[in-house]
Amino acid sequence: MPLATLLTDFGTADGYVAEMKGVLLSGVPALQLVDVSHDVPAQDVEFARLSFARYWRRFPVGTVHLVVVDPDVGTARKALAIESDGRFAVGPDNGVLSPAMLWPGARAVAIEIPHGAAPTFHGRDVFAPAAVRLLRGDAFEDLGAPYSDAALRRTPEAQRRNDGGQDGLVLGVDRFGNLITNLTGRGEGTVEVAGKLLRVVRTYGDVTEGELLALVGSHGLIEVAVRGGNASRTLGIARGAPVTLRRDGGTA
Amino acid sequence: MPLATLLTDFGTADGYVAEMKGVLLSGVPALQLVDVSHDVPAQDVEFARLSFARYWRRFPVGTVHLVVVDPDVGTARKALAIESDGRFAVGPDNGVLSPAMLWPGARAVAIEIPHGAAPTFHGRDVFAPAAVRLLRGDAFEDLGAPYSDAALRRTPEAQRRNDGGQDGLVLGVDRFGNLITNLTGRGEGTVEVAGKLLRVVRTYGDVTEGELLALVGSHGLIEVAVRGGNASRTLGIARGAPVTLRRDGGTA
Amino acid sequence: MPLATLLTDFGTADGYVAEMKGVLLSGVPALQLVDVSHDVPAQDVEFARLSFARYWRRFPVGTVHLVVVDPDVGTARKALAIESDGRFAVGPDNGVLSPAMLWPGARAVAIEIPHGAAPTFHGRDVFAPAAVRLLRGDAFEDLGAPYSDAALRRTPEAQRRNDGGQDGLVLGVDRFGNLITNLTGRGEGTVEVAGKLLRVVRTYGDVTEGELLALVGSHGLIEVAVRGGNASRTLGIARGAPVTLRRDGGTA
Repeated sequence: MPLATLLTDFGTADGYVAEMKGVLLSGVPALQLVDVSHDVPAQDVEFARLSFARYWRRFPVGTVHLVVVDPDVGTARKALAIESDGRFAVGPDNGVLSPAMLWPGARAVAIEIPHGAAPTFHGRDVFAPAAVRLLRGDAFEDLGAPYSDAALRRTPEAQRRNDGGQDGLVLGVDRFGNLITNLTGRGEGTVEVAGKLLRVVRTYGDVTEGELLALVGSHGLIEVAVRGGNASRTLGIARGAPVTLRRDGGTA
Repeated sequence: MPLATLLTDFGTADGYVAEMKGVLLSGVPALQLVDVSHDVPAQDVEFARLSFARYWRRFPVGTVHLVVVDPDVGTARKALAIESDGRFAVGPDNGVLSPAMLWPGARAVAIEIPHGAAPTFHGRDVFAPAAVRLLRGDAFEDLGAPYSDAALRRTPEAQRRNDGGQDGLVLGVDRFGNLITNLTGRGEGTVEVAGKLLRVVRTYGDVTEGELLALVGSHGLIEVAVRGGNASRTLGIARGAPVTLRRDGGTA
Repeated sequence: MPLATLLTDFGTADGYVAEMKGVLLSGVPALQLVDVSHDVPAQDVEFARLSFARYWRRFPVGTVHLVVVDPDVGTARKALAIESDGRFAVGPDNGVLSPAMLWPGARAVAIEIPHGAAPTFHGRDVFAPAAVRLLRGDAFEDLGAPYSDAALRRTPEAQRRNDGGQDGLVLGVDRFGNLITNLTGRGEGTVEVAGKLLRVVRTYGDVTEGELLALVGSHGLIEVAVRGGNASRTLGIARGAPVTLRRDGGTA
């Protein structure tokens, strides 16, 4: 069964996403169409990139991911289709598709812009039609010319410290107020954030209700949270704030 | 494959939309069920009408559109089913379905209210069951008596000016803060809005980041936007604000 | 066709829900996947329980409901699968699944936690895989050991008064600002709320635009509303506020 996912910053109320869905379902009647989200903060390419990084490989081989967070629609930026690890992705050439593009063996083409495409709505007139072609089984190469110059964004890496720790930052804050950092760990050490020192624990159950904690999140990155609460509000910090991982007193 | 879409102002968290989905899927097990939105501002029929206008004909022939923005549920207002251009729509008789009703050849029936329908929740007890009948292939005429008195809402038309321009208004503001107007154009002239004069350009790429612009949007209506920004906030104006299109100095 | 529904408090933008969807669709390619909501207030188990109560039996026999509002993920709380009235539900043992658990004949098992499951994300690593097994037709008993100690939450019942009325409270406020109470009625009497006395009417059409009213809602509970308005804002009251149903002057 052909399967497509949709990630946009359009919201749903205005009906733009529905227009895209109409194009997809008109082109591929038996399509399995999965909403990822339409609530990405408006024009926040970096937010969308981090979200896309989480889910793109969780879907079956053959899935076509549409990612339309596209502040530069109507400029000279390219429209891309990517084949990577058996999945496909279509979206603007602004780095939002980097997680798939940076995977070994990925390749990209620059999608030809159909004549008459609205310069303000490539989601409907460029990306959805390209997805339809892929979902129908058209050859990837037929969508456009190979493109080797795709914009790439990388998650900033934490810096190794002389004492064996890491200096990093808050990559994002999720709906629960958890701070997702770029510190990597195996569950040891102490996190310094907003003047607090937090021992890295294994799970929420290791602290009491309302207490701050640090743990290794579901993607291997260290997160700062409040059990039953909101760490971002408690600490008054947001995306970009500095965090440090300290090795425990010379033992590791 | 039977295909239905859903547009409501219910939000999703309370579970009302899920009740409707349960009715639909219990009645039509192989249903392809597409969320348009449940985030329409509460009881905002006009907002929903403009959204519906955008997407209803994008879906394949045979699609059944449910549109339940229904501030007068439980009054004497009729419940309608419409057949138009090969698609179906069900919803309250408050004008929200006008885009389909005004299409050439459209016809309507007044759905019989099932005995025991909750007077506060026709979405679940009237519209979803009517959609099930259409999705199962029941004859349109069997849903109720022909109805020729459907409430109609029309997008207000801009007024032609003596100098060849138009006086119009802001029909709505989308999630990006773009002002969707009722001015029609082919990409020429100057828009006057909130004391600013904006040359109509072809695309966002024609201005610099942060700059105001006017262009012809993806539905042929002139929009006012800020590249990489939010025009509604920048200009401090909202739905209903006056806008004017001026012909360029005597040249057209 | 295998059918699963999803209710979470994750929001969609961060991509966590999409990870769960990827697991489900990788495991059950022909899955019909229905979003109930991802907008439940964060960690609000009681809100989710009331929503789940509304929809779980509306879906066909065989449906697998995932309900992941799970403030105690990573503690010793059990992970449950429930079979009830022909439907299945999976979720944390915090009472959120009580509506299904309290149905006659329901039974529960404690799902075995897969080795390597992230202690912060049982939605992806415990509940979605358990749902996949049920959707593929694995025997319910094979998911884990029978569990007879599931946490139960019950909607608080209104108290019968000597005069034949009831003392109750506001269970919740929906998106329209309607106050859903635990008063039960057949459409008679007078509701006292926030110092106002409201005759119970049959439908919105029984009052004029902007007027307060009380009526029997679509689940048999008395609701307080403002026709065309927002009762919660008008009255300045929220979840938990006291309400009283008075019998009409000695006549009933």
